[in-house]
Amino acid sequence: MAVALMIPGLALFYGGMVSSRSVLNMIMMVFGAVAVVGVLWTFYGFSAAFGDSYGGLGLLGNLTEHLGLGDLVAGDDAATLPPAAVAIFQALFAVITTALIAGAIADRVRFGPWLLFSGVWATLVYFPVAHWVFAFDSADGSVAGGWIANRLGAVDFAGGTAVHINAGIGALAVILVVGKRVGWPKQARPNSLPLVAAGAGILWFGWFGFNGGSALAAGNSASVVMLTTFNATCGAMLAWLLVERFRDGHATTLGAMSGAIAGLVAITPSCGAVTPMGALLVGAIAGAICPLAISLKYRLGYDDSLDVIGVHLVGGLLGTLLVGFLGTADAPSGQAGLFYGGGFGLLGKQAVAAFAVLGYSFVVTLAIAYAIQKTIGFRLSPEKEAAGIDVVEHAELAYDLEGKLHAPGTGPTPAAVIASAERLTAEAAPTGTNAPS
Amino acid sequence: MAVALMIPGLALFYGGMVSSRSVLNMIMMVFGAVAVVGVLWTFYGFSAAFGDSYGGLGLLGNLTEHLGLGDLVAGDDAATLPPAAVAIFQALFAVITTALIAGAIADRVRFGPWLLFSGVWATLVYFPVAHWVFAFDSADGSVAGGWIANRLGAVDFAGGTAVHINAGIGALAVILVVGKRVGWPKQARPNSLPLVAAGAGILWFGWFGFNGGSALAAGNSASVVMLTTFNATCGAMLAWLLVERFRDGHATTLGAMSGAIAGLVAITPSCGAVTPMGALLVGAIAGAICPLAISLKYRLGYDDSLDVIGVHLVGGLLGTLLVGFLGTADAPSGQAGLFYGGGFGLLGKQAVAAFAVLGYSFVVTLAIAYAIQKTIGFRLSPEKEAAGIDVVEHAELAYDLEGKLHAPGTGPTPAAVIASAERLTAEAAPTGTNAPS
Amino acid sequence: MAVALMIPGLALFYGGMVSSRSVLNMIMMVFGAVAVVGVLWTFYGFSAAFGDSYGGLGLLGNLTEHLGLGDLVAGDDAATLPPAAVAIFQALFAVITTALIAGAIADRVRFGPWLLFSGVWATLVYFPVAHWVFAFDSADGSVAGGWIANRLGAVDFAGGTAVHINAGIGALAVILVVGKRVGWPKQARPNSLPLVAAGAGILWFGWFGFNGGSALAAGNSASVVMLTTFNATCGAMLAWLLVERFRDGHATTLGAMSGAIAGLVAITPSCGAVTPMGALLVGAIAGAICPLAISLKYRLGYDDSLDVIGVHLVGGLLGTLLVGFLGTADAPSGQAGLFYGGGFGLLGKQAVAAFAVLGYSFVVTLAIAYAIQKTIGFRLSPEKEAAGIDVVEHAELAYDLEGKLHAPGTGPTPAAVIASAERLTAEAAPTGTNAPS
Repeated sequence: MAVALMIPGLALFYGGMVSSRSVLNMIMMVFGAVAVVGVLWTFYGFSAAFGDSYGGLGLLGNLTEHLGLGDLVAGDDAATLPPAAVAIFQALFAVITTALIAGAIADRVRFGPWLLFSGVWATLVYFPVAHWVFAFDSADGSVAGGWIANRLGAVDFAGGTAVHINAGIGALAVILVVGKRVGWPKQARPNSLPLVAAGAGILWFGWFGFNGGSALAAGNSASVVMLTTFNATCGAMLAWLLVERFRDGHATTLGAMSGAIAGLVAITPSCGAVTPMGALLVGAIAGAICPLAISLKYRLGYDDSLDVIGVHLVGGLLGTLLVGFLGTADAPSGQAGLFYGGGFGLLGKQAVAAFAVLGYSFVVTLAIAYAIQKTIGFRLSPEKEAAGIDVVEHAELAYDLEGKLHAPGTGPTPAAVIASAERLTAEAAPTGTNAPS
Repeated sequence: MAVALMIPGLALFYGGMVSSRSVLNMIMMVFGAVAVVGVLWTFYGFSAAFGDSYGGLGLLGNLTEHLGLGDLVAGDDAATLPPAAVAIFQALFAVITTALIAGAIADRVRFGPWLLFSGVWATLVYFPVAHWVFAFDSADGSVAGGWIANRLGAVDFAGGTAVHINAGIGALAVILVVGKRVGWPKQARPNSLPLVAAGAGILWFGWFGFNGGSALAAGNSASVVMLTTFNATCGAMLAWLLVERFRDGHATTLGAMSGAIAGLVAITPSCGAVTPMGALLVGAIAGAICPLAISLKYRLGYDDSLDVIGVHLVGGLLGTLLVGFLGTADAPSGQAGLFYGGGFGLLGKQAVAAFAVLGYSFVVTLAIAYAIQKTIGFRLSPEKEAAGIDVVEHAELAYDLEGKLHAPGTGPTPAAVIASAERLTAEAAPTGTNAPS
Repeated sequence: MAVALMIPGLALFYGGMVSSRSVLNMIMMVFGAVAVVGVLWTFYGFSAAFGDSYGGLGLLGNLTEHLGLGDLVAGDDAATLPPAAVAIFQALFAVITTALIAGAIADRVRFGPWLLFSGVWATLVYFPVAHWVFAFDSADGSVAGGWIANRLGAVDFAGGTAVHINAGIGALAVILVVGKRVGWPKQARPNSLPLVAAGAGILWFGWFGFNGGSALAAGNSASVVMLTTFNATCGAMLAWLLVERFRDGHATTLGAMSGAIAGLVAITPSCGAVTPMGALLVGAIAGAICPLAISLKYRLGYDDSLDVIGVHLVGGLLGTLLVGFLGTADAPSGQAGLFYGGGFGLLGKQAVAAFAVLGYSFVVTLAIAYAIQKTIGFRLSPEKEAAGIDVVEHAELAYDLEGKLHAPGTGPTPAAVIASAERLTAEAAPTGTNAPS
């Protein structure tokens, strides 16, 4: 259950990167999405993802097949992989994928609408896509799984498409709807880089479970997968630091941690498909290209607060496509890519899988975000955003190092906060609110 | 061994919630109790809990049966559950349960007496109660276990009674002896809510081990238990946030994290007894009732610093009693409650177990705390408390963000600290010391 | 894979202890060493440590035997311990051991040369020594392992020699080359003791994997090892706190956490060799002696920033030698020490192993550090050190609690930092630079 530690890992990784006035909202976006999607998973999410495919089309599982998951309770204790184990392991994939999107829209969306978005996005985007990618036909053919896993036969060991491309392109769609933060491209520095490092390190550990657990059993496959997961991370971290060193003159902590995550993202689909040296290469490529992709945001003018697109979309695409080049028949996934005598076939399948998920997720996410923005409203008002989202949405401050005594139930006062906000934003001198039209 | 991560998880969860002048003492209370109880566990604790019951009465295990645990060293490496595995797994239950009490008396007790209390409480309260609840008769009947587990036959999968009711009511007893903090109900804000979130997230992960490990083997039971553990947490977090939103106008980070813990507490006894939907309900009930219970402390006038009573006692009682309603024969625990055709029998057993532990723990804990207070003294002097417990008890400050150089061995000076304390408490204007009579 | 969590655990444990102006560099030294050594491990490190010994001498494994680790990919999924599992488990030993050295030279070495040092040190010191200690002859005798594990037959369950003595004496050698920090023995207080506690707690959890995993299988041996690991930690923490209480008047958080680590270090070689009571004694001895050893640094005049020598070298020596006294034939390691009827034989072997590693590591590490210092330079200039290593090496500050907006790509300005540094160091009034000659 190492995967479960990815929840606080992600909360700290994201929480450390934002302004000191937005830490708690970022943590709450992660935990809140986890809770909402976790509940839906029990109701119908697991059924949608792992139920028998409607019409055998591989598009969506039978929503009522495991309604409430009560049918998983009685089971065989000697089974090596009981359905309940799949249900809890994959529940964590669903909640974490949804939470990944939060990083792109830090500091500027209302908490209630975010929770609504989480539930709708998981329902309309994640659950179907997870069915496409993760639901294998049953051995006896009686239960039909998803089209990417079975009909197309693309390789996605632990979620390059369903998790990272999906969340990354979804992040772009939401950003297009909610717009930039006040004052952007000016922005606050990370409030705590040690917290970022703690989060990244915890995510690394959790990822061993995420990828290793996808081998579905202990043994050689799981060990190989953990080895490639480790190699890609090391390679990506070094590559990112080298890019920074030569481009900016300094290798930063934020770069090292972003590099580690980029490597983990890229190896997620490919961890069972490549050799350890192949994994090093996958990591190094992701670690070199993602930081270049990230700098595009200032040119293209979109405000991806914590670089979800640059890391998860770009890293996920790289990892998914590189399987088509570096896949080797010896590895657990057992499919040879272009450089290992497999021709262009696998590469084509990988591209189809990647762009099918990308296109579907982008269109549907855009529609969901737009519908929320036009009905209940998604974006925080510019005044509240300037005042600091932690106080206005949660009536809390992340840190209190003074230790003064207060009467119970008295949160930070809005007046003081708004005064402080005016002081803080005066220097930033936003020329416009950048709020969505 | 995920359970082992609950030690720092609890230290951070509690440590983040207290004043910036009490962080270290709170962390030390957790780790200190762990060390003391860990040592006693090796000497006689494991024997008291899991030794053959004296007279077959199910009240206390034979204290010398596994004295020093040397008899567990030589063992069968093919055994699926060697006694040494039980010894280390249950050691963590003992140390964590004792440490839970610390949160109720934050900021105001002397460190040495706390260590003494920990050892005596584990000896007189935890070890016997663990025997009652966790020691099953051996399959061949040659070794007699505890009365709750065997004679009564109540369901307590992972410690609703022995862990949470036990620590929660113990907390109340200690509070009655040591009294309120200076200035209460005024109190300092949490020094670091990100630390609270980190701790809660780590505790969540550890709890999968705590509950899942109590299934004693991998397989379907452990998977079901982890699924229900996850569901209850999600349900409780959402319920708590809803209560806050409608009662106070804001959903807070502290509420989300407290909700998660309340759900984990309530599902601890019931994780093997209910369906996934039942677990959602258990969580939602705990998440809705615990925050209401907590607000009682201001009316009743007791200072439970970090709401150990509201979360662990109330959550533990709810979870234990709900088994009597929501238990299903299909689940690993295999007993049907009132709503699943089981009649009132199970509910009665659950109530007997809950209130037996509650009554025993309250009386004995009160006696221990009173004895310590009247002999060596438990409570810190009001002057020292106002000066800040980290400095006066440990000669340290939690944070130093200035980076000034100091000569080795020079801690924060008492004079400066007391001056600072006077400034900090001036505004609080305590009308009395609230120290115990 | 609990061991993987030791990476962020170590980063936080070390990172919390240093000045607020050096946190990030410390974290980067840990993660950077991990990445470099992780890559080398894949290329030739695993081969050097676990390949067939050149000439059967037990000094170094065949460097090309598993070049790139591609030969480990195809394997038997039914194997209980596939070579890929050894490769990833032992990779973490290699990276963590190297990273341990960083704590001794905090605040004062250049990042690039540190990465170079890491790679060279792992190659010339760790990989060979790991071969000596961890590479067992194959059961059929066709593959020869290391001399300490096989020819000498010393007991080192999880790395008292290869990990802790090795890193601890290596730390001393590097300190002799790079010299003291500016202003020493004046030094900054730990920037965040809660971070130190978080790191120590996470390390404790990881150590269960480190020691337990070294049992190579679940079952009684692994359980016994985790039990002794727990006992030693509890014993050491209490012993350290007692020493502090009687020597300094206060039991500190830093002491409790250092005590926990000292206990873990000492039990690393002995966790499979002693009884639970023996483990308590091993821990108590380490917890009592290490704090006394640490105070020697002020008398002998070496600047071991985070006490790597006092904890890892001294603790590692104690644990390794105590096997010779407290080893019992019943335990997994199966060898009796002096107090259990084994005579002086085992003690002699332990001493030979300890001092062979100590001597080799000291000489080679000294040569590596000296070569780096005399060529590209290891030590940071005194001016840069005074300005704060986080800013000058990484262009970042650990914390930003103000939340002001800045234009993208603008790090903390050097001018402001140097002004701040002058203010901070004015009081410290260094009488010399203490830079190496």
